[in-house]
Amino acid sequence: MQVVSDPLAFRGACDEIRARGQRLGLVPTMGALHDGHASLVRAARQKSDVVAITIFVNPTQFGPNEDYARYPRTLDADVAIGRAAGAELVFAPSTDAMYPAGEETRVVPGATAGPFCGAYRPGHFPGVATIVAKLFNLAGPCVAAFGKKDYQQLRVLQRLVTDLFFPIELLPVPTMREPDGVAMSSRNRYLSPADRANARAIPLGLSAAHRAFTSGERRASALTSLVRSRVEPIATSIDYVDIADADTLRTYGPDDTIAERAVLALALRVAGARLIDNVVLGEDPSPIAEAL
Amino acid sequence: MQVVSDPLAFRGACDEIRARGQRLGLVPTMGALHDGHASLVRAARQKSDVVAITIFVNPTQFGPNEDYARYPRTLDADVAIGRAAGAELVFAPSTDAMYPAGEETRVVPGATAGPFCGAYRPGHFPGVATIVAKLFNLAGPCVAAFGKKDYQQLRVLQRLVTDLFFPIELLPVPTMREPDGVAMSSRNRYLSPADRANARAIPLGLSAAHRAFTSGERRASALTSLVRSRVEPIATSIDYVDIADADTLRTYGPDDTIAERAVLALALRVAGARLIDNVVLGEDPSPIAEAL
Repeated sequence: MQVVSDPLAFRGACDEIRARGQRLGLVPTMGALHDGHASLVRAARQKSDVVAITIFVNPTQFGPNEDYARYPRTLDADVAIGRAAGAELVFAPSTDAMYPAGEETRVVPGATAGPFCGAYRPGHFPGVATIVAKLFNLAGPCVAAFGKKDYQQLRVLQRLVTDLFFPIELLPVPTMREPDGVAMSSRNRYLSPADRANARAIPLGLSAAHRAFTSGERRASALTSLVRSRVEPIATSIDYVDIADADTLRTYGPDDTIAERAVLALALRVAGARLIDNVVLGEDPSPIAEAL
Repeated sequence: MQVVSDPLAFRGACDEIRARGQRLGLVPTMGALHDGHASLVRAARQKSDVVAITIFVNPTQFGPNEDYARYPRTLDADVAIGRAAGAELVFAPSTDAMYPAGEETRVVPGATAGPFCGAYRPGHFPGVATIVAKLFNLAGPCVAAFGKKDYQQLRVLQRLVTDLFFPIELLPVPTMREPDGVAMSSRNRYLSPADRANARAIPLGLSAAHRAFTSGERRASALTSLVRSRVEPIATSIDYVDIADADTLRTYGPDDTIAERAVLALALRVAGARLIDNVVLGEDPSPIAEAL
């Protein structure tokens, strides 16, 4: 496993991989790796010969009152997890290397970044799109893997790739969940044991909506109410529980009837942790394994 | 000479060039080619094996009251000029091909795009940066040539390449001028013969400032006044005659003393034509060939 911090050394290592005629797969992360990230590495590896992980807590995607400073930084453990999952290269740059003095260009998504988290974290998706464009240009991968847990991020980045003609295939990777259905997240480690147990209400709510949709329920408000009734008792606050077109992320109003593929997504706080999750209705499996 | 209009056909042609082990040079243009563009092709050819010209009148870099609709479209003549200058590939896409329905991602420059034309054409440089990022990703060139006549565009794109780590070398190419010193421009064809003759005041003014700077004048207002006094009689209106740091484009106030490499730039209207020009004080040759 090669670990580099200098951007041009990373580019050089990627150039060598391509010069050998090998396909490069990229897994951009903020570190604090868990099994969800390992599944991204495995997915990328299936579509490439060599997988590189990038580990960078990207300041431009955090708002002023968010958890940038306390976001977990666990490089040694991350390298071990990446190696075990099959990655051969890790890029872990400094902030100054990715945002040197004078740096100023931004990549700004459009309407796809508007609803959901985009409405609550105004600079988040421009920050994500900018850092991902930088990493794409440094690495020049054939494929890049992103998790469906960050569903809106995935859609924003699919637009980035399509709109700017990046010659890269994006791999959407299904959300990895704990045995009780809670989506794996680096931020779960902010939760107390009691809060972590309570978080099970999130996949239970999503599963209830998933089940109702499968049974024919198409009223947006009925589906979101099934989620809200379960998560309200355990949430310190709720940013949103909303349904949107699964491709464009145009949101449905409460009185709308869902016509197309739709994603039901939520963001809420449990004590100091902001948790997100989602289910693509009629497409994803239920977030909770259910008895047949 | 190969002429393609489909983006993926263009990418395929560029992929073939690289697959042969050849270096690709790119010359992005809006068409209406003249000898200035030919010099870009020759400069790119000196740094590459095969040169591709792109010809696309990019709608996102025009404001609502600008000359997008009437901008000259002369594809057949452009192909001939490109071929004569040594280009082997022309990409001339439709607007829908570069901006298909649903397209929404933008590349947005920072402070470098603030002064000069950025202050008078608010969406111009985001439009330029976005289309250039698209073309870079489609072509994947080693080098790309841009003229110093569009000095601010050049600086904005140098920031784009540096900030987003595009693996591309930008070639700044000196401004080509007519025998009387007027900078070559596709928009010169908007000028009546009388206005075209009057336009000689622009390089005369820049030359006067250039000469004064060489003689030791460092007061910003004194240098810009030398230009203004010559262009005011021939301009319908003047957007700006300003001096800025040649790298960052931080502008000097009228009472400032120029300490570093500086660019003196102007934009003005002569009848219906908006003309721009500039000189890098102490670096460029005089815009008017002067007797020794």
